[in-house]
Amino acid sequence: MTPSMTKNRYFEDFSIGEIIDHATPRTITQGDVSMGLALYGNRHALMSSTPFAKQLGYRDRPLDDVLVFNMIFGKSVPDISTHAIANLGYGEGLFCAPVYCGDTLSARSEVLGLRENKNGKSGIVMVRTHGFKQSFKGGFNQDKVCVLHYVRWVMVHKRDPIKNKNLPDTRSPLDLPPVAPFVEPKDLIPPPVDFSKTDDMSAGSAKRFGDYKIGEQIFHCGGTTLSQAEHMMATRLYQNTAHVHFNAQGQAATPHKKRLIYGGHIIAHIRAMSFDGLENAHCLAAINGGTHLAPAFAEDTIYGASTILDKAEVQDRSDIGAPYLRTDVGAVRVRHIATINQPPTPSSFSDKTHLILDFDCWLWMPK
Amino acid sequence: MTPSMTKNRYFEDFSIGEIIDHATPRTITQGDVSMGLALYGNRHALMSSTPFAKQLGYRDRPLDDVLVFNMIFGKSVPDISTHAIANLGYGEGLFCAPVYCGDTLSARSEVLGLRENKNGKSGIVMVRTHGFKQSFKGGFNQDKVCVLHYVRWVMVHKRDPIKNKNLPDTRSPLDLPPVAPFVEPKDLIPPPVDFSKTDDMSAGSAKRFGDYKIGEQIFHCGGTTLSQAEHMMATRLYQNTAHVHFNAQGQAATPHKKRLIYGGHIIAHIRAMSFDGLENAHCLAAINGGTHLAPAFAEDTIYGASTILDKAEVQDRSDIGAPYLRTDVGAVRVRHIATINQPPTPSSFSDKTHLILDFDCWLWMPK
Amino acid sequence: MTPSMTKNRYFEDFSIGEIIDHATPRTITQGDVSMGLALYGNRHALMSSTPFAKQLGYRDRPLDDVLVFNMIFGKSVPDISTHAIANLGYGEGLFCAPVYCGDTLSARSEVLGLRENKNGKSGIVMVRTHGFKQSFKGGFNQDKVCVLHYVRWVMVHKRDPIKNKNLPDTRSPLDLPPVAPFVEPKDLIPPPVDFSKTDDMSAGSAKRFGDYKIGEQIFHCGGTTLSQAEHMMATRLYQNTAHVHFNAQGQAATPHKKRLIYGGHIIAHIRAMSFDGLENAHCLAAINGGTHLAPAFAEDTIYGASTILDKAEVQDRSDIGAPYLRTDVGAVRVRHIATINQPPTPSSFSDKTHLILDFDCWLWMPK
Repeated sequence: MTPSMTKNRYFEDFSIGEIIDHATPRTITQGDVSMGLALYGNRHALMSSTPFAKQLGYRDRPLDDVLVFNMIFGKSVPDISTHAIANLGYGEGLFCAPVYCGDTLSARSEVLGLRENKNGKSGIVMVRTHGFKQSFKGGFNQDKVCVLHYVRWVMVHKRDPIKNKNLPDTRSPLDLPPVAPFVEPKDLIPPPVDFSKTDDMSAGSAKRFGDYKIGEQIFHCGGTTLSQAEHMMATRLYQNTAHVHFNAQGQAATPHKKRLIYGGHIIAHIRAMSFDGLENAHCLAAINGGTHLAPAFAEDTIYGASTILDKAEVQDRSDIGAPYLRTDVGAVRVRHIATINQPPTPSSFSDKTHLILDFDCWLWMPK
Repeated sequence: MTPSMTKNRYFEDFSIGEIIDHATPRTITQGDVSMGLALYGNRHALMSSTPFAKQLGYRDRPLDDVLVFNMIFGKSVPDISTHAIANLGYGEGLFCAPVYCGDTLSARSEVLGLRENKNGKSGIVMVRTHGFKQSFKGGFNQDKVCVLHYVRWVMVHKRDPIKNKNLPDTRSPLDLPPVAPFVEPKDLIPPPVDFSKTDDMSAGSAKRFGDYKIGEQIFHCGGTTLSQAEHMMATRLYQNTAHVHFNAQGQAATPHKKRLIYGGHIIAHIRAMSFDGLENAHCLAAINGGTHLAPAFAEDTIYGASTILDKAEVQDRSDIGAPYLRTDVGAVRVRHIATINQPPTPSSFSDKTHLILDFDCWLWMPK
Repeated sequence: MTPSMTKNRYFEDFSIGEIIDHATPRTITQGDVSMGLALYGNRHALMSSTPFAKQLGYRDRPLDDVLVFNMIFGKSVPDISTHAIANLGYGEGLFCAPVYCGDTLSARSEVLGLRENKNGKSGIVMVRTHGFKQSFKGGFNQDKVCVLHYVRWVMVHKRDPIKNKNLPDTRSPLDLPPVAPFVEPKDLIPPPVDFSKTDDMSAGSAKRFGDYKIGEQIFHCGGTTLSQAEHMMATRLYQNTAHVHFNAQGQAATPHKKRLIYGGHIIAHIRAMSFDGLENAHCLAAINGGTHLAPAFAEDTIYGASTILDKAEVQDRSDIGAPYLRTDVGAVRVRHIATINQPPTPSSFSDKTHLILDFDCWLWMPK
C-alpha cells in the first residue's frame, strides 16, 4: 500500500490549524456547462446565454454558482472526505468573483475544528475551504483570485475504530468552533455589472427585487427522479471521490445498503428547479447555511420549494470613493428546501417532514 | 403559489393568435455537440469534423439539425407543453440556416389552433415555432436569423378537467388548421456551400443523390436500448421541462405508470442510426411530418429503417440573378421509421406494427 | 438491405494485407474532455489543468491518452468489429504525439492476420490501427500526424456460420502473426516538454521516477460500480458501434444474456483509479499488452491495482545531434489489473482470480 501525500485521510489524520492545498487544478470549459445543463436542466438566463450576460456587463456567461461550489468542494474531497460518512453542514459561504470558461479552479482548506464521535468509530471534521481561479486572457494571469469560501463540517470514518465502545476514549473530544447563522448583507460582494439591464422576456419573468415579500412561499413546478448514472457522472465531473457515491458493493455492507447521492447534486437540482418562481435570481451571493437532513438514493423523487426569509439593500464601493447604494440590485435571502418522495406543502417549512435539504442563501435579484 | 409570466400553461391558458416569446436564450457550445455524440453516437462526418465541414465551405462544423430542432423545441416546452400528455405531430418544418457553436438560440411561438378533447380533461394546442440564432463573430450581431420553423400539435392537460364527462362542454371545440402534407422542394433552402466537395472516404460511403431509388428500403444496422438516465440528460440538455419525462412518482399515478421517453430523443436516435445507409445525408432540409405512434419507455429497444419517398432537384438564387439549378446537391425525401422491441421488416412500412415514430423529411444529399 | 462500402463486416469480409480507411473524422473538443471527466473522474493534473500543462511546455492541456486510444479505437469499430464477440487483446501500442482540443482524429487499419475458429461460427481478426490528427492553428495544417498506433485482435462473427460443425472447413485457418511482448524503451517517444517542471502540490504527490521500485504493488483507493447509461454514453462518445454494447434485446439471445461493457471503458476507469499512487504518471508512453480476461456487465463493481514491472531511462534526439539522455523524465512499466466484485489483494497479480483486465503499459514519470 503506497501512501501518497495527504490524500484519503481518516479522522485521525487531521490536526487543527493545518492548511491543505488540494491537488488537481481544474480548467473549466463549455463542456462543463453543457454537462451541468444535461444533469440539472437549469434555465436561468445568465448561465445559459452569452448575449444576456454581456448585456449586464459580464465579459462572458459566468458559470452557475452552484456548479462553482461543487467544483471547489470536489477539489477538497480527496483530502478531506474520501472516507466521509455524511456531509453535515455548510455555512459562512461567500461568492467573491464570477467564474468563466477558461478559468482554472483550485482550492485550499484550513482545519477549523475536530470532534470525535462517542461511538469511537468516526468524528466530525470542520474546515474552511477557499476556491481560487486563474484566468486566461491572452496569457495566464498567475495571480489567483478567490471566487468562493465557505465552512463545512463532515463526518469521517476513523482508520482504527474503537471496537468496544465502553473503552475509554484516548482522544479528547474538542468543541467545534461556532458558525455565524448567516452572512451579513454588508459583507456581500455585488458583481460589478448592471443588473438593471436584465431583459425580463429572456429571463422568463418580470418579477424583481421589489416584488418579493418576506414570508412568501414558492412551490417550484415539477419533481425529478434521481438516477445512479446521473449522480455518479455529476460527482465525477466535480472530481469528487467519496466512496459512498460510487461503490455499490462497498455500500451494501453499510446500514444504508446502497450508494448515497452526493449532497451537492441535490443542491444543484434545487437551484435548477427554483427557476420557476425565482427566474431573475441570476446568481448566488452567499450560502448562509446548508444541511442534509436525510440521505437520498437513486430512484427517489425530489421536489423543491422556497421561502423568502429577508431582503437587503447592498452597498458597493468604488475604487476611490465612499460606499454607495446599488440601485440595480438587491439581495434576497431565500430558504430552499428539498423534499423526498412527497411534494412540499406550506407546512413542510416548519415540520420538516420529508425534508432532505435545508439550504439558506442570499441571491442577487435585479431591482 | 407564485405565478410567473406565461410559463407552465394548461389548456385553458392559450388563445388563438397569441405570440409567445420563450425564455432563456441558449448559447450552443462544443459541450452540447459532445453531449449529443455521447447520447446518440452520430457518425455523419459534417457534424463530427471541422476539416470536413470547411472543405464544403462551412465556416465550422454545423450542429446536427436534429440537435437544433430539439434545442428550439425545448425552449418552447415551459410555455407550451409543461403539462403535455403527448406530442402528437410536427409538420411544415423548414431548416433555414446552419447553427454553429457560439450561436445563441432563442424561440417564439404563435398559437395556430386549439381543440378541446371530448373527455373534458385535455385539449390539443397547435403552434408554429420559430427558432432564431444570434451569431458571435468578433462581436455580437444583434440581428436574429431564423434557423428553423415548424408546426407542432400537442395534447395538454386542462387545469380544471370536467369531472363528469356527460356535462355539456362550455368551450366550443375549434378545428385545427390544416397542415401541408409535405414541404414543396421549391421552398427548400440549400446551404450556401459546395456539397460536391464531399470526401466519400471520410463520409463513409460513395453513395450519392443519383444512387438512391424511389421506393428503396434501408434497414439500419443495430438497435439501441433506452435508459432513464440518458433520456433525462438529453431532455434536460434541451432545457425541456415536460414533467412526464422526469417524475417517476408523478407518472406512477398515470395509465402509463412510468416516465415517457421524450419523442425528440427517439428522433435523434433514428437520425444517428440512419447513418448506416444514408452516410452522405449531411443535414436536413425540411421536416414534412412527424408522428409519435406509441410511447417508449426506458429499457425498450428501438430500431430504425428508412424508405426513399421522393427525390428533387433544387434551385438556388444568387443575390442578383435568376434562380439556377444546384448541380452539387439534391433533396431526397426519406421516411424514417422507428420500431420498438422488434427489428423492422419490409412490411413495417405499411402495417405499422411496432412503430413508435413515423418521420418524413427532406435530406440534403451530394450529387 | 443496402450495402455501404466496407462497414459492418463479418469475418468473411476481411482479407490479409487490406488497408481500411475508417470513416467519420472526429474533431476533439473541451466537451469531450468534460464527458471523459464525468465518466471516469480522472484527476491527473496534466489533463485537468491548462496552466499545469503550459508550465511543462505543452501548448494546452493534452487529452488523456486513454481517451485518445478510445477515440481511435472507436473509429475502427464500424469497419472491424461491429459484429465483434469480444476484444481479445492489444499490443505494440505507441503514443507518438499529444492530442489537443481542436485536433481532428482519423484512423486507418491494416489487416495483419485472420484465423477462423474451429466452431465455424467466428474468427479472429488482427489489425494494426494508426490514429492521426490534423491540427488547427489559425488555419488547418493538412498534414496528418500519427498520434498512436497499436495492434489488436478481436473475435468476429461469421456472416454464414457453419451450422453443422462436423462439416469440413472450406477456409484454411491461418496463423496470426506474433506480437512483441513489450515495446522496447528505445522506441518510446518522449514528449518534447520539461517534466521536471511538474508542480507536485498540484499533481497531488511528490513521488517521482526515483521513488518507484520494481516489484512494488499499489492498491488504488475505492471501487466503482458500472452502469448501463454510463458505458453506453462512453461508447457512443467514441462513435463505437459494436452491437454487444447497446442492444439489450439482441444480447438476451446470447450466452451472456445482457449487454457487455466496452473493454476500453474498463481501461479508462483503471487509468482514472490509478491516480491514487501514480499521481505523477502524467501520460502513457506505450501499451505493451492488454487482455480482457472476462466480460463485465452493468452493476458489477470494479477495482484497480498496479505493480511496477520495470523502469527505463529514455533517450531523446535533437533535430541535428546525437541522442541524449532525458534527465527530466523516465519510463515506468506498470501492470494495471482490474478485478470484478472483489477488491484486489497481493495474490491477485498471480492467481488472476476475479481479474477482468490485465493491462501492461509504459508511463511517463517525472524525475
